[in-house]
Amino acid sequence: MFNFDHRIELRNSVNDLFMAGEILIDMISADYNDNSTSGTYHRFFGGSPSNIAMNAKKLGIRAVVASATGEDGLGSYLIHELENAGIDTGYVQRAADYSTSMVVVTKSRSTPIPIFYRGADYHLSYTPELEEGLKNSKIVHFSCWPLSRRPARDTIEKIIATAKMNNLLVCFDPNYHPMLWEDGEDGVRYVKSIIGKVDIVKPSEDDAERLFGKQTPERYLETFLKLGAKLVILTLGKDGAVVSNGTETVRFDTLATEVADTTGAGDAFWSGFYAAAIKGYPIRQALALGFAVSAYKLKYTGAIVDLPRLEVIKNMYGL
Amino acid sequence: MFNFDHRIELRNSVNDLFMAGEILIDMISADYNDNSTSGTYHRFFGGSPSNIAMNAKKLGIRAVVASATGEDGLGSYLIHELENAGIDTGYVQRAADYSTSMVVVTKSRSTPIPIFYRGADYHLSYTPELEEGLKNSKIVHFSCWPLSRRPARDTIEKIIATAKMNNLLVCFDPNYHPMLWEDGEDGVRYVKSIIGKVDIVKPSEDDAERLFGKQTPERYLETFLKLGAKLVILTLGKDGAVVSNGTETVRFDTLATEVADTTGAGDAFWSGFYAAAIKGYPIRQALALGFAVSAYKLKYTGAIVDLPRLEVIKNMYGL
Repeated sequence: MFNFDHRIELRNSVNDLFMAGEILIDMISADYNDNSTSGTYHRFFGGSPSNIAMNAKKLGIRAVVASATGEDGLGSYLIHELENAGIDTGYVQRAADYSTSMVVVTKSRSTPIPIFYRGADYHLSYTPELEEGLKNSKIVHFSCWPLSRRPARDTIEKIIATAKMNNLLVCFDPNYHPMLWEDGEDGVRYVKSIIGKVDIVKPSEDDAERLFGKQTPERYLETFLKLGAKLVILTLGKDGAVVSNGTETVRFDTLATEVADTTGAGDAFWSGFYAAAIKGYPIRQALALGFAVSAYKLKYTGAIVDLPRLEVIKNMYGL
Repeated sequence: MFNFDHRIELRNSVNDLFMAGEILIDMISADYNDNSTSGTYHRFFGGSPSNIAMNAKKLGIRAVVASATGEDGLGSYLIHELENAGIDTGYVQRAADYSTSMVVVTKSRSTPIPIFYRGADYHLSYTPELEEGLKNSKIVHFSCWPLSRRPARDTIEKIIATAKMNNLLVCFDPNYHPMLWEDGEDGVRYVKSIIGKVDIVKPSEDDAERLFGKQTPERYLETFLKLGAKLVILTLGKDGAVVSNGTETVRFDTLATEVADTTGAGDAFWSGFYAAAIKGYPIRQALALGFAVSAYKLKYTGAIVDLPRLEVIKNMYGL
C-alpha cells in the first residue's frame, strides 16, 4: 500500500535504478520531403530506459542500463554515448548475430509512421552479471518493448521474479503499441498479465486506450488497480495527471508553462519521480517533483535535455 | 555452348529482362565522424536487380523488377523511384508484416562495415503474376541476396525451374558474402549448387575467393565451369576480365580511363551486356559493350548514373 504522505520504503543497495530493456538508434528525417532522391536523416540515441538513466544521473542518483546492442558500429555509438553520460555500461550486452535495433521516422505532414528494425534489442539475456546488478539495485524499471518479443520477454519475467524475491520496487511503463508485437499475438492480454506483477505503472491516456478501449480516466485507474498494480499514475497531457493507490486518488495539474517538444516528457517524469523517491521524499511530493522535471524538459527540444540536479528543479517550481 | 562469335539465341517475348531479388534502402553516412551525437545519413535507392533494370532501360531495352518492400514509407519511396525511372512496378510485392530492408553504412577511415536490416526483401513470393511476368521475358537475373534466406530462396528455385522449362537465359551474380547468411548455414555449399543450374555467372575475384579460397583466375574459371556454369565472366578490377565458355578463354582489358567511384560498376556491366545480347550482338562484342558501359559509369559518382543509349556508348568506345 502506497500512502501518499509516506516515503517509499526502499531496500539498501549500492545502486539506485536498474533500467532494463531497449536501446536503439532513432533515425529521423531532417525534413518533410518524403520522395526526394536522397532524403537526409539524423541518427540519435534512443531507448526509454537509457534516457531515464541519463536523466536520473543528472538529477543526482545512480542508474545502470541492462540492454543489448549488435556488435556493430551503431552499437558502439550507443555504448559510447552512455559512457559519455557517465552511465556504467557493464550490463550492456552485445548480441553477435543481430544488428543494433533502429526506428526510422520520416517526417510527414500527415502521420509520420515509425518503421521498426528490431534486432539486438530483444535478445537481452538473463545472465549472472545481470542478476548481480539487479540484486544490487533498489528499483527496477521496464516498458513494453522488451516484453513484446522473446527472448527478452523471458528475461524480464526472470527479472521480475528476482526483483520480488529481493524486495526491489518494480515499475512498469505500459506503453503498449500493437506495431511492436508480432502478428497474431495477443499483446494486450500479455501486458495485462504483467500489470498484476508490478508495483507502479505510469500509463498515458493513449496507452490506456490501446489496452482497454475508450474509457474515463477514473475507469482506467480502476482497471489498472484491479489488474494488480499498487500505484497507478495516469498522465493526461496538458490536463496533468491522476494518481491512485486504490484508496485515494490525487489530481496533479500540469506544471508546464512552455511546450517546445513533448518527446521524452514521460521519461523525464520517471527520472524525477525516481530521484525524489530515492532521496526519501513522500510519494505526493515525489510525484510533484516528477511532474516538475517533466515540465522542465518540455521547455527544450530533444528526448534528453541538460537537467540540473533535483534540488534545483525543486526550488525552481517551489516544491 | 556459348560461342564468342555468335549471338545468344533468345526466345521471343514481350519483355527483355526479368530482374528478381532484393530492393532496399541504402542509408549512408554523410561524413566519417562515427561518434557525433547526431550523425547525418542520406537515404538512397538500393538493390542490384533494380539498378540493372534502370540502367538497361536507359540503354534501350525493357526490364521488370520482381522484389518485395514493406508496406511502409520507405517501400513507397522505392516504388516511386522505380516508377520515375519508367520501370513497370507490377511485380513489386508489399510484404505486410515486414519493414523495407535497409543497409546502413557508416563511413569510416578504417573499414566501413555495412549493417544489414533485412525484412521484406527476402519475403518475395512466387505468385501467379510473377510467373506470368517471367514467362513473358527473355533473360532472368538474380544474385546471392534472395538465395541467402527463405522464403525468397524457394521463390528463386521455382523461378529457375520455370525459366529453364521456358527456355529463358538464366544469369546469376554469385556475389556471395557470409554476412548475408544466417549463422551456421553453409552458404558456400548452397551457392555452388546453384551455379550448376544457371547459364551465365559473373563473379568478381573477391566473390570467387570467398567461395573457393585464394586461387589463380584460371583456376576460378575452371571451378565455375566444373560446377556447371556455361559462360563464366570473371572480373579482375583494373586488370579487366577473363571470360571462358569451357573451350575458349578470352581476356578483356579494362576500358576505364577515369575512376571516380566503383559503386555499381558490376551492375553497369550486366546492363550493357544484356542490352547488347538483346540487340543481337555476338557474345564477344556484347561483353566488350558491357565493359564499356561499366567504364562509362566509373567516371561518375553513384550507383546509378545517367547512361546514354547503348549505341552512343558503342561509338564512344569505338566498338
